[in-house]
Amino acid sequence: MIGEQMFDRSWRIVQGLWRDWAGGGSAVDRSLGPEALVHLRRRMVECLEARGGEASARARAAELGRHYLSLDVDGRRRFLLLLADGFGLDEEAAKAAAQRFAAGEIDAATLREALAPPRVRLLTQFTALPQGVKVLVDLRAAILGLLDQKDPESAVLKGLDADLKALLTAWFDVGLLELQRITWDSPASLLETLFVTEAVHKIKDWKDLRDRLDSDRRVYAFFHPRMAQEPLIVLNVALTKGIANSVQQLLDEGKPSDDPAAADTAMFYSISNAQPGLRGIGFGNFLIKQVVDLLRREFPRVTTFATLSPMPGFRRWVDQLPTEDATRLADPKHPVDPRPELNALTGPPPAEAGRLAHALARLGAAYLVQAKRDQLPLDPVARFHLGNGAAIERINVGGDRSEKGWRESYGVMVNYLYRLETIEANHEALEAHGTVVASDAVRALLDTPRRFSLFRSAG
Amino acid sequence: MIGEQMFDRSWRIVQGLWRDWAGGGSAVDRSLGPEALVHLRRRMVECLEARGGEASARARAAELGRHYLSLDVDGRRRFLLLLADGFGLDEEAAKAAAQRFAAGEIDAATLREALAPPRVRLLTQFTALPQGVKVLVDLRAAILGLLDQKDPESAVLKGLDADLKALLTAWFDVGLLELQRITWDSPASLLETLFVTEAVHKIKDWKDLRDRLDSDRRVYAFFHPRMAQEPLIVLNVALTKGIANSVQQLLDEGKPSDDPAAADTAMFYSISNAQPGLRGIGFGNFLIKQVVDLLRREFPRVTTFATLSPMPGFRRWVDQLPTEDATRLADPKHPVDPRPELNALTGPPPAEAGRLAHALARLGAAYLVQAKRDQLPLDPVARFHLGNGAAIERINVGGDRSEKGWRESYGVMVNYLYRLETIEANHEALEAHGTVVASDAVRALLDTPRRFSLFRSAG
Amino acid sequence: MIGEQMFDRSWRIVQGLWRDWAGGGSAVDRSLGPEALVHLRRRMVECLEARGGEASARARAAELGRHYLSLDVDGRRRFLLLLADGFGLDEEAAKAAAQRFAAGEIDAATLREALAPPRVRLLTQFTALPQGVKVLVDLRAAILGLLDQKDPESAVLKGLDADLKALLTAWFDVGLLELQRITWDSPASLLETLFVTEAVHKIKDWKDLRDRLDSDRRVYAFFHPRMAQEPLIVLNVALTKGIANSVQQLLDEGKPSDDPAAADTAMFYSISNAQPGLRGIGFGNFLIKQVVDLLRREFPRVTTFATLSPMPGFRRWVDQLPTEDATRLADPKHPVDPRPELNALTGPPPAEAGRLAHALARLGAAYLVQAKRDQLPLDPVARFHLGNGAAIERINVGGDRSEKGWRESYGVMVNYLYRLETIEANHEALEAHGTVVASDAVRALLDTPRRFSLFRSAG
Amino acid sequence: MIGEQMFDRSWRIVQGLWRDWAGGGSAVDRSLGPEALVHLRRRMVECLEARGGEASARARAAELGRHYLSLDVDGRRRFLLLLADGFGLDEEAAKAAAQRFAAGEIDAATLREALAPPRVRLLTQFTALPQGVKVLVDLRAAILGLLDQKDPESAVLKGLDADLKALLTAWFDVGLLELQRITWDSPASLLETLFVTEAVHKIKDWKDLRDRLDSDRRVYAFFHPRMAQEPLIVLNVALTKGIANSVQQLLDEGKPSDDPAAADTAMFYSISNAQPGLRGIGFGNFLIKQVVDLLRREFPRVTTFATLSPMPGFRRWVDQLPTEDATRLADPKHPVDPRPELNALTGPPPAEAGRLAHALARLGAAYLVQAKRDQLPLDPVARFHLGNGAAIERINVGGDRSEKGWRESYGVMVNYLYRLETIEANHEALEAHGTVVASDAVRALLDTPRRFSLFRSAG
Repeated sequence: MIGEQMFDRSWRIVQGLWRDWAGGGSAVDRSLGPEALVHLRRRMVECLEARGGEASARARAAELGRHYLSLDVDGRRRFLLLLADGFGLDEEAAKAAAQRFAAGEIDAATLREALAPPRVRLLTQFTALPQGVKVLVDLRAAILGLLDQKDPESAVLKGLDADLKALLTAWFDVGLLELQRITWDSPASLLETLFVTEAVHKIKDWKDLRDRLDSDRRVYAFFHPRMAQEPLIVLNVALTKGIANSVQQLLDEGKPSDDPAAADTAMFYSISNAQPGLRGIGFGNFLIKQVVDLLRREFPRVTTFATLSPMPGFRRWVDQLPTEDATRLADPKHPVDPRPELNALTGPPPAEAGRLAHALARLGAAYLVQAKRDQLPLDPVARFHLGNGAAIERINVGGDRSEKGWRESYGVMVNYLYRLETIEANHEALEAHGTVVASDAVRALLDTPRRFSLFRSAG
Repeated sequence: MIGEQMFDRSWRIVQGLWRDWAGGGSAVDRSLGPEALVHLRRRMVECLEARGGEASARARAAELGRHYLSLDVDGRRRFLLLLADGFGLDEEAAKAAAQRFAAGEIDAATLREALAPPRVRLLTQFTALPQGVKVLVDLRAAILGLLDQKDPESAVLKGLDADLKALLTAWFDVGLLELQRITWDSPASLLETLFVTEAVHKIKDWKDLRDRLDSDRRVYAFFHPRMAQEPLIVLNVALTKGIANSVQQLLDEGKPSDDPAAADTAMFYSISNAQPGLRGIGFGNFLIKQVVDLLRREFPRVTTFATLSPMPGFRRWVDQLPTEDATRLADPKHPVDPRPELNALTGPPPAEAGRLAHALARLGAAYLVQAKRDQLPLDPVARFHLGNGAAIERINVGGDRSEKGWRESYGVMVNYLYRLETIEANHEALEAHGTVVASDAVRALLDTPRRFSLFRSAG
Repeated sequence: MIGEQMFDRSWRIVQGLWRDWAGGGSAVDRSLGPEALVHLRRRMVECLEARGGEASARARAAELGRHYLSLDVDGRRRFLLLLADGFGLDEEAAKAAAQRFAAGEIDAATLREALAPPRVRLLTQFTALPQGVKVLVDLRAAILGLLDQKDPESAVLKGLDADLKALLTAWFDVGLLELQRITWDSPASLLETLFVTEAVHKIKDWKDLRDRLDSDRRVYAFFHPRMAQEPLIVLNVALTKGIANSVQQLLDEGKPSDDPAAADTAMFYSISNAQPGLRGIGFGNFLIKQVVDLLRREFPRVTTFATLSPMPGFRRWVDQLPTEDATRLADPKHPVDPRPELNALTGPPPAEAGRLAHALARLGAAYLVQAKRDQLPLDPVARFHLGNGAAIERINVGGDRSEKGWRESYGVMVNYLYRLETIEANHEALEAHGTVVASDAVRALLDTPRRFSLFRSAG
Repeated sequence: MIGEQMFDRSWRIVQGLWRDWAGGGSAVDRSLGPEALVHLRRRMVECLEARGGEASARARAAELGRHYLSLDVDGRRRFLLLLADGFGLDEEAAKAAAQRFAAGEIDAATLREALAPPRVRLLTQFTALPQGVKVLVDLRAAILGLLDQKDPESAVLKGLDADLKALLTAWFDVGLLELQRITWDSPASLLETLFVTEAVHKIKDWKDLRDRLDSDRRVYAFFHPRMAQEPLIVLNVALTKGIANSVQQLLDEGKPSDDPAAADTAMFYSISNAQPGLRGIGFGNFLIKQVVDLLRREFPRVTTFATLSPMPGFRRWVDQLPTEDATRLADPKHPVDPRPELNALTGPPPAEAGRLAHALARLGAAYLVQAKRDQLPLDPVARFHLGNGAAIERINVGGDRSEKGWRESYGVMVNYLYRLETIEANHEALEAHGTVVASDAVRALLDTPRRFSLFRSAG
């Protein structure tokens, strides 16, 4: 696969870079057996003791880093477990320090130091190495991968993950990020990363990629100064006349490219996190706002900013509804559960008009506006855009005619609308009262304005 | 003065930039009278409460920043005092949290949060603004200026300074800094900053500056990605044959420039912190090591890396010595106190040879090797270089023939030598045992190898 | 096809750019019928008369250029014929001027002006337009295409071609060209041009392209400042141990990339003209020499610079040999014509060893060393490299196992060797005496040192 | 002087660069005595014969170039005379070729070749050398310097100058030039060249230079791709409210910089040729038009484009007028010759109002509108701007209060106005009929609309 090889290559380069920092370096036990583990623990302790000055400590960190990169899957897991288990907070010492602070014997700064686990200092050393930040990001991706497997032994990694997340949150402060436009004139090595990154609508080949960089499109990404050619998050925009209602139409290759000068709408049709290791560190919010600013300046005639978004949890939610609810929500006047009929449709999505389409539209509106978890929308994409201050503009039955679209959301998509004047109020309404703002058209699909209790988390 | 206007200009630009972020903005009370102060406190609280989402909080931070920049000297001082006094740590709440942590009721992360003063959150908001990092750096410079004045009322700023220093230490991690060479082809706006920056040997005019960028010179600096055209620390290097012993000879404009290809030595003749607001956040250490690396690659024939350094505390130390010590240290065989004779010399420095020169050399060696404070060298420059792992190579009587040189150090200078093979051991020797490593020639100037108790801190 | 669309895109862009220069512009007769032709001739005359100042003349040139670009194939041919036929040299006036010069009545500068055909002035106007140089280059490509078709009516284009070639020769002076290395970090839009450019070994897809930019490869190209993203000529280099003898081995994708640091040889395995419109304007010569210089500096251990080159006219030459010659050249000791046997082999090339292989090697040596046209090698690739001062190093039977390789040269390839010390002498020997320099091994394949008369041009 | 040293430095660099091309190189006779001259002629012949391929010919050219650069003033003159005298056109051969062409025996291309003097081929070789184009430009500057001295022996250089000018005209085609804005962020080495370049209003020091790059100013220049850091022609623009009438007011340092957003006028207050060797190769015309285009896009509110120009020949013209003409032109109603009174004023210029000021205004209008040479304006600056299609807008008595201003033009300056709609018509009117277009206000100063014969060339 494009991308796999890419990562292999970049690891090899990093290992080469670090060889210079770490000095010699001998053959290693790639699976990190008991003996190697003892040895590794000793090197970590030495690195923390930082004998020989800070530069020397960084050299030791480089050696640790190379060690990690040279390990196989098992070895890396053991490395991470050692870091998590052996270099966490010394709880007793921390509690003693807390008591001394409470008694006025030490100051806040001293207590703060006592609360910093050794592994945090160790990880911090990496940042001065070439590609060190990238290695930390990928380290966290590995930890998250292990945590996602819900292996009980890996639970100890949770603390390490929290520490690393805190470190990365500071490092990836929005103030440090740079917004860049990606074009067909960008380096091929950078464009290549988009194949891996694109999460919403897979890029088929280089031709498809070039189409997405055509004159009626824009691709923007945030970059970090220490990961110069690695996008952090990527936003795809299409300049259109009117709000698009179908992703296939938007991505249609055969179509001649629209004249961007004639566009009145910017469609955000895909936003993808490019770094799994930065999960939960949010800057998509800022990306959208900065892109809106840029586009307004470049295209004064573009006045509508909307998304064409998937509803990834919709089908699952529909399928789990009690029959009574499904029936009523689908169409109060014709009390028939639409699900048997829907499930009978295997491949193709339903016609845009008709009873079934209407049922899907109504169910979609209910899902987005009323289904909640902890006062926030149940749908993760809705949570993101509505949390940013967008509003629900339109439900598009048949918006995604792909197999995946049918499987996840019966082919329904949604447009979220970003209006600068209402962003703050929308955000407030959601945060303070859990209120989801939707257009009149969408609200008309909901006959029951009350919020019912039955919409609980599906997770 | 060159530089003054420069800063004025850049402030004006920043204010303009922030106008867009902060929205309107009305006429302000430039000296921040009582009424304005109440209003300001309210805005700070709102900013902390971050109503309306993060982007909105940043807009409020921008407004606060503009407010600060629009104030006069008094107003700024009041602004800082408010921040220090009104938004520090809530000690009672923090202590309560510490007790709950000690009792196992809350976890470390929660305690850590309780230990973060509100002003830290407020200051962090600034980093996302254009030039925000630079503004924080200059804010700290202003705080340090007030603290240096030892005004009792300003003492409350110490905590704010500590918070800001911690914030900036994280932001100016060596891993984020970029080493760049500065040449005569660099932007004039960047070169202009060197006039202000150069702390050791003032730059007279543009011609002088150009000479310092000649083919037998190198100027390197660290930059931060968010302060792209502001050097953080600047290192001047001259490529020479043999170790230079006089700064006037090194800077002599009349002299034709040496052929760098013939050089065997790199003289580090000036290292200057360019940002007063980054005082105490050390990266000079790394700068020297990275430059040594670069030079070794570019000039394989350059094998000696040495400084020509001032001894800023030398005269003061000599002048305060007890007569007995001064006499013995100057020349054990001719027990005469050399100081009356030295003080009779007003302008010109002494001849290089002769009795007085010998006395100065011996006193210089004693000052550098034996005068300590807290086990470390008393002289601040010695503390820096010896702490980095350099060794004392040679004492240069008459090395600095300027008026300032005479006034501060009786014209004596010193060469520190950086040898990669011994850097770590030298650093260790100093750190662990307080041992200063010096060449045989320098040690020969010391007849008393024991460390005497009388060399106490001069401060 | 990749590339086709690319050109379409760039034409559209140029037309857009010129719209601004040319002012309005109305619908045109795309096939340039008689009426449109009369109109066009009038515009050309106006453009030459340059009423309204030079800037105005350029605007008219832009209009003409847009007109040309808007035409279909037939229209473009008529446009070029008009330019060739209607705006050539006024022979009578030129002869009159020559007579006046011979009589001492006018000076050389005046005569020179009288010898410049109007179309040259017209074409020169284009160079000030955005992309104007590129348009002229493509104009000549179109002319060459028509001339290649040997259509009698197009013969009139020969003079226009000569004028344009002279103009482009001045514009593409080696002094103006910039040597650049192309890497995987180059803009994708630039890399895309390589698909079209590569003449010797077709690039299959983006993965293949990336392999050719791997760490043991180098790709260099000349660029012109006014055609910034269009390579003019592209040179592919592989860093190897020893001289490679097979192109499939060199391009094998499966093979792990060699460590360039261990290489002792630079193989020039493909050199391609990227601009058909620059045919006959030679700078390949300079490209090779500059690349040799660059590689020697980057890889001091690389001491051998050789090509792995095709012999495009070899099979045709062999197939046309008189039986007697073919028999004798193939193997004087076994007088059998090898061609029936060779022609019986359809797909696969012969084994490297064996009688047939030996016959091919001997025929190859005779072809390269002895077959001439006008004292120069008959083979166009040999003419290029030997004319540059290279020598024939080795004949590689089975060097190209592709179908095309068999079809054109019975799979035989050749290594030319570039040695800086002998380049000048080799060039002289060829130029002055038609002597081809070859290694002892190659000369041993030739038992008849005399040059025979029977090798005549195959063309 | 700033600049002198700069040139010295750059020569040294070029010599160094060429050493590599030219190979060894021995000590030379710097004044080029007879023996050295014979040797030099032989080298030139060899270079022309180009034995050993083109690359070898370039190496010989590099050697010749280094030779030239190593010579003293006398030596360089002898070098140029040799080139001019010994390598000009072979007139006899050229005439013979012309006769053969007239007889139809050879074609135009062959005749064209016969008309190219050997020195042209020789000079062309230089262009492939690093800095070769710059060396040719400076060579022509040296030739022009010798021609300006009107030394009879140097007259032979005229042909060489013509050849070189033709060569440079082709090389410096507008199509190859790049328009760049120069700012305070430009390289110091580039800004330094402006000190030497600025011909109209000398730059005092770096502070003055920075003021000219302030936010209400723009500096633009043309660059050639092969002389990347050498501006060819520099245009200074000030953004103002209304058309400025005094250069001192425009350049006043004390004045706070205007807000460029509020400006309605762009004043072109200085245009300077930066390369003496490009005299007579005009691209100022294009520079102004391109800058007008750029400014219109950046500042839509700027609608007036005007110059504040000197009238360098004005005083000389006034002083040479017959008494009768001077009297009548100054003021037909008060028939007094104003010149004795004007000449009595040594330093300070006259008051803006009053009789004398009125006389100067009337004389200025007559000078610009009516004084001609070959149908074109006598004043060289007027010839440039009016030839470009500008019109005379206003005469500014006291516009230049400098000593030089008084000496050359009695302190009078003029505004030329560039209006896109009339540029072409104005140019035509001048070219076709010698008609100077002026505003009503200026025409009102002329009571005699007829063109009188008495205004002849002053040269």
